[in-house]
Amino acid sequence: MPLFDKKHPYPGKLIIVEGIDGSGKSTQIALLKKWLESEGFSVFFTEWNSSDLVKETTREGKKKNLLTPTTFSLLHATDFADRLNYQIIPPLKAGMIVLADRYAYTAFARDVVRGVHPTWVRNLYSFAVKPDISFYFRVPIQMAAERLLSGRAMIKFHEAGMDIPENTGKDIVDSFKIFQSRIIDQYEKMIEEFNLTPIDATADIHEQQELVREAVKEAIKGYSKKRTIYAKRGKVYWRRFTVS
Amino acid sequence: MPLFDKKHPYPGKLIIVEGIDGSGKSTQIALLKKWLESEGFSVFFTEWNSSDLVKETTREGKKKNLLTPTTFSLLHATDFADRLNYQIIPPLKAGMIVLADRYAYTAFARDVVRGVHPTWVRNLYSFAVKPDISFYFRVPIQMAAERLLSGRAMIKFHEAGMDIPENTGKDIVDSFKIFQSRIIDQYEKMIEEFNLTPIDATADIHEQQELVREAVKEAIKGYSKKRTIYAKRGKVYWRRFTVS
Repeated sequence: MPLFDKKHPYPGKLIIVEGIDGSGKSTQIALLKKWLESEGFSVFFTEWNSSDLVKETTREGKKKNLLTPTTFSLLHATDFADRLNYQIIPPLKAGMIVLADRYAYTAFARDVVRGVHPTWVRNLYSFAVKPDISFYFRVPIQMAAERLLSGRAMIKFHEAGMDIPENTGKDIVDSFKIFQSRIIDQYEKMIEEFNLTPIDATADIHEQQELVREAVKEAIKGYSKKRTIYAKRGKVYWRRFTVS
Repeated sequence: MPLFDKKHPYPGKLIIVEGIDGSGKSTQIALLKKWLESEGFSVFFTEWNSSDLVKETTREGKKKNLLTPTTFSLLHATDFADRLNYQIIPPLKAGMIVLADRYAYTAFARDVVRGVHPTWVRNLYSFAVKPDISFYFRVPIQMAAERLLSGRAMIKFHEAGMDIPENTGKDIVDSFKIFQSRIIDQYEKMIEEFNLTPIDATADIHEQQELVREAVKEAIKGYSKKRTIYAKRGKVYWRRFTVS
């Protein structure tokens, strides 16, 4: 099955951001959301691993560190499938702009580093739709680690890949650097494979945002705001939708 | 990725049963279990959709009929991955005979009837191991429906495929027959694809059991009971195992 080889058929637009933890992608997508809304667009935001269906299960499994790489990967794919059907496709059908903080590429990077087969995980997500634009926030490990350490008390267990047997007993910051460097390698390979748009995440926040906005303007060219009339009913609409 | 193309490397044996609801496979596997135990083998039993990890989630999703075919398929695969890692591989490693009531073939039959792509769902389960013998209990729809209706009060909602939009409002027995007939078509195609051993499930229970035992004897030829010493520690053993 060819993956993400054709544009989705919906009137809305799908914009996604990728990058390692501490790359600043969440800040950028939040700024983009505010800007799009101020421009009068109807925007729907969704983030990785957040569906009610499996959130609790993933949390429990993580806590107990009982999940193998395959099970972990399948749980994330289940979460994604659920969000795709209830949070991504319906607003796209309603003509909204959907912003996703992380997309299938996160699985292609993280799950492969955890040990699953690259082809297997790509097949797993072949039901997904191709984003209209995919940003990749490129940042050196050192800067990402510093940002995370300054922003909150500590790096999280799974962000550092501490669940991987070879990292047992290692310093969490060292483990973070090794684990996230491998994820960067995967992202770098995907730039060409999935036509990601790299953004230099070492630059000033507002400079980055300018680049993001320019690229978005280009990607949504010809997109009509008229649809926002339907989109106002979004909340009721997407909850009730079933996509077969 | 080629699917189930080579024998698993473990000292134990994996025996699985397949067939539509009402085919009598669960009765047959229960009889087989008793017989194997009476012969001095150490046996571990596992059944479809029973891992603690996602059982509750699947139950909730089913109840609310909120799951799309893809999400449903992914949840079952997650359950299977979890059971494979904690209930199937470890006892196989410990040299036990593992009996599974339903295996990946159930997904290949049901999920395809619900609308997922046959190749996609086969790829999904490519992490599974090939059973040493796979029985397929072949039964005409009418007999299966009668067995289910006599054995318990009613046919279950999902057994009848009532969650499929085209079956909305249909009589549950009619829907069961249509849905399970399609599942039979899928099983019939898999006999050759996966080298299933068909058993005539219209025959007398004890006649069927004789055929099953003969086939099992053949399939486990050369298998040594010596391993049962380790298998006695099975419970502690398989709970603590992590398969990477």
